[in-house]
Amino acid sequence: MRYRLYYWPGIQGRGEFIRLALEDAGAEYVDVLRPSGNSSFSKNPVLKQPPFAPPYLIAGKRVISQTANILHYLGPRLRLAPRNEAGRFWLHQLQLTIADWLVEVHDTHHPIGSGLYYEEQKAEAKRRSADFLSVRLPKYLDYFERVLRRAAGGYLLGKACSYADLSLFQMVAGLRYAFPVAFGRLERRYARIIGVHDRAAARPRLAAYLASERRIPFNQQGIFRHYPELDRLRNNSKKT
Amino acid sequence: MRYRLYYWPGIQGRGEFIRLALEDAGAEYVDVLRPSGNSSFSKNPVLKQPPFAPPYLIAGKRVISQTANILHYLGPRLRLAPRNEAGRFWLHQLQLTIADWLVEVHDTHHPIGSGLYYEEQKAEAKRRSADFLSVRLPKYLDYFERVLRRAAGGYLLGKACSYADLSLFQMVAGLRYAFPVAFGRLERRYARIIGVHDRAAARPRLAAYLASERRIPFNQQGIFRHYPELDRLRNNSKKT
Repeated sequence: MRYRLYYWPGIQGRGEFIRLALEDAGAEYVDVLRPSGNSSFSKNPVLKQPPFAPPYLIAGKRVISQTANILHYLGPRLRLAPRNEAGRFWLHQLQLTIADWLVEVHDTHHPIGSGLYYEEQKAEAKRRSADFLSVRLPKYLDYFERVLRRAAGGYLLGKACSYADLSLFQMVAGLRYAFPVAFGRLERRYARIIGVHDRAAARPRLAAYLASERRIPFNQQGIFRHYPELDRLRNNSKKT
Repeated sequence: MRYRLYYWPGIQGRGEFIRLALEDAGAEYVDVLRPSGNSSFSKNPVLKQPPFAPPYLIAGKRVISQTANILHYLGPRLRLAPRNEAGRFWLHQLQLTIADWLVEVHDTHHPIGSGLYYEEQKAEAKRRSADFLSVRLPKYLDYFERVLRRAAGGYLLGKACSYADLSLFQMVAGLRYAFPVAFGRLERRYARIIGVHDRAAARPRLAAYLASERRIPFNQQGIFRHYPELDRLRNNSKKT
């Protein structure tokens, strides 16, 4: 199967979570860098099942959208997921939690509207980032560290690397880019998560991809963005 | 199978999307209203696959979390999803888009942090709501209206009602509660979406549930909240 991946050009974004799985598996795929987004595609009147937004994957006659859904589909086909139903649902659940986490990362710099410039919501971004770094980020990190402790094999499912491990690698890489100070301090407490990052990065095909020109560098148009004024740890205690 | 649903007490929240499916199917389930949330459960050291947050469903020996994932699991078992793989992935994709939409509804009143009071982020909530109502909400409504037009049977998949249709019913009901003025004006343009709402509400088991005491009323602690100061349509045009 030769896959076609549609995503915005010039950024890693959500497309990167799919690329990491395809690259690690050595799958044949075309990265279709569309110049102007999905509108023409999703409004195509002949498409009976239109995607809401990129990324979407073309696999034969099927068009699949929603990052976690694409990985859920690809997982067993790329040998990055178990074949049994219970295992697939558990892995997908982890991926959906990473998806929630990623939305919160995005909203640190766009808390008011994704269609507005960062400069138009900078004050709000500072407040949201402070809350994210002090409350939400440790909650996600604690959770994945706990899952890894219980899996007891070095990866989220145990000894076998899954697509969610590659996504966890990407979260660590992105957070290091976006919040070098705050995440740099936090990450020392999460040896198992950092272990997944390091083991994933050392996998031969993934290492080759990361060193290639196909890996778009992190930049200020992506989901992970580095604004020094947002990179500050602070305490937040109030509830509801 | 007798299911056990764990969710916060006193609000519809994400749990309601599961309840609607269980109720419409006439499934046997216990709604376990936990007084103090998930922490004791998800930190239970014997639980190898802990959920990140409620809702979670206990089905025999399995613990399944993430609303869309629970519905993906329940769908074929409750006859609210097709049995074939392609149909299930498409339906799940629609449900994940509803999940994204729901996060944006939540963030209209909590744009800075879900752990802070509304009153601490009221100014930001006004800006975010204006953007949501004028930019994001029409985008989601346009999308689902388009899917329904192409499905051409009255429901998202055609003639058979699916769990995503019940979720779409809930979105309409919640938006009417939260934004009576703004959504009241918008909804007139979306006859197919309102059609799904009306047809779902008229299904005998769902109608009985909605009229029962088991249906918790919308209130100011849930995801859908009515703050008159946020219920205003405004124009927003800037990009990125």
